[in-house]
Amino acid sequence: MPEIPFQQLAIVGLGLMGGSVAKALRAAGYGGRIRAALASSAAVESLQDSVEAWQIELSPVLPEVLADADLILLATPPRIMLNQLDEIARWAAASALVTDIASTKNAITRRAMDLLGSRFVGGHPVVGSELTGFHAAREDLYRGAQVILTPFPGQTDAQAVEKLRQFWTALGAEVQEMSPMAHDEALAATSHVPHLLAFMYLAGLEARFPGLENLAGGGLRDFSRIADSNPALWAEILLENRQAVRQQLQQVQQNLQLAEQLLAAGATAELQSWLSRGKTVRQQFHFPPVPV
Amino acid sequence: MPEIPFQQLAIVGLGLMGGSVAKALRAAGYGGRIRAALASSAAVESLQDSVEAWQIELSPVLPEVLADADLILLATPPRIMLNQLDEIARWAAASALVTDIASTKNAITRRAMDLLGSRFVGGHPVVGSELTGFHAAREDLYRGAQVILTPFPGQTDAQAVEKLRQFWTALGAEVQEMSPMAHDEALAATSHVPHLLAFMYLAGLEARFPGLENLAGGGLRDFSRIADSNPALWAEILLENRQAVRQQLQQVQQNLQLAEQLLAAGATAELQSWLSRGKTVRQQFHFPPVPV
Repeated sequence: MPEIPFQQLAIVGLGLMGGSVAKALRAAGYGGRIRAALASSAAVESLQDSVEAWQIELSPVLPEVLADADLILLATPPRIMLNQLDEIARWAAASALVTDIASTKNAITRRAMDLLGSRFVGGHPVVGSELTGFHAAREDLYRGAQVILTPFPGQTDAQAVEKLRQFWTALGAEVQEMSPMAHDEALAATSHVPHLLAFMYLAGLEARFPGLENLAGGGLRDFSRIADSNPALWAEILLENRQAVRQQLQQVQQNLQLAEQLLAAGATAELQSWLSRGKTVRQQFHFPPVPV
Repeated sequence: MPEIPFQQLAIVGLGLMGGSVAKALRAAGYGGRIRAALASSAAVESLQDSVEAWQIELSPVLPEVLADADLILLATPPRIMLNQLDEIARWAAASALVTDIASTKNAITRRAMDLLGSRFVGGHPVVGSELTGFHAAREDLYRGAQVILTPFPGQTDAQAVEKLRQFWTALGAEVQEMSPMAHDEALAATSHVPHLLAFMYLAGLEARFPGLENLAGGGLRDFSRIADSNPALWAEILLENRQAVRQQLQQVQQNLQLAEQLLAAGATAELQSWLSRGKTVRQQFHFPPVPV
């Protein structure tokens, strides 16, 4: 396996994302220590049997997990993560590199750098699942995925960025860098607003029942898969990134208005040309492989 | 295999849908004759080798293909199908049952019954793919799928409906009946408008390039898969069913307006409750199985 420049990893929150990092490391032959901080003793107890095969040490005591870690990966939901930053900064070793996996980057990166300085590097693996929890975590979740690191130019430690690039590359991901603001704008378009559309579209079908549930094919199944995601998490993400989300949403509304006019006018050629543009744009995307 | 109450099938148009019927029949051990009418001698020539294993006889001469068929399956794109009906009615044997696979049912069913009377039964297998053509056709396309038959109560021959139910059931589908109008309203909601949203959403990202194409995960991949469908076909479907599509689209626009207001107001709890409604509605759907 490619060299991983960390000896002891602390994962805060062992759900789908954090759990998949741990499983991917072990699957790649990583021999370092992996500790995970969970919210409670009950959470530790319920996961204890499942983590054994992956050699992950669990604890509900954050300072204990962070003590000797040289990489701290924050993998709790965004609101909780923001609230944990004070404590993370208090207990992290002075030499530890700290990163995260949150879907929005502006607020968390600013707050974390206020507290941790140049050794915090924001990160976002652009993958996920409608499933949640350690049991849904997969050792191949990051294979072929894009991971975006969001250093502040001139402020973030360049060596820390380089080490994280090695780390994610070893797990099979492709790493790129952009500013936290550019990230949040782009992800509003490629992820946050599509989630909002899928959720709101399905919510709008509520009044159309009963009977409709037997009248859908694979199109609606795939279109709306992301509406099976965690509503609490997505309300947080959408509000966290609401400026960019609202901007993108207004653009969508304009486009739908246009579609409405083309339908009303029976403008076949123009409608077809818009659909073709959509198809062409889609074909330019490099999506992660479909999991098997 | 369950008994199929037809000895000789004529398929008009041997693409994804028609081709999958032929392959499914042969895979199920059907021993009857299967003939397919294609648009030209060139089309016949280019498919000749591929159909041999499936024992399908090709011809560009419609009257020849229809001559002795007891089941005629119309499987061309909707506009072409509408234009073919006169010729179909002219050459179909008086005892032949005629059906179709088009995604909208109101216009085609009315026109076909004007020409063919009670022996036309509209049908719509609620499956598909962004892929097209005989090579994309799959013997398991209809397995577990919903097939909707759209007889006009009191006008369509009840025995013909029953025979078609047997036919599709033998291919692994679940058959239900509804009126052509109810069908078109329901499908606007479960298929046509989701396609329109996916196409228009991607078209709206055109101006956001370059760079965005490397910043998408599995969410956008699946949400927009249907935007990889045939634009000409979908412009036809959307315009054919434009009354129901526009109604559904207006409802979507209202919902997005509401989402915009909740984001602007920072209304976390209310936004989360809408997302939860979307998730709950989705979980009530019975989708066809994901193809492997």
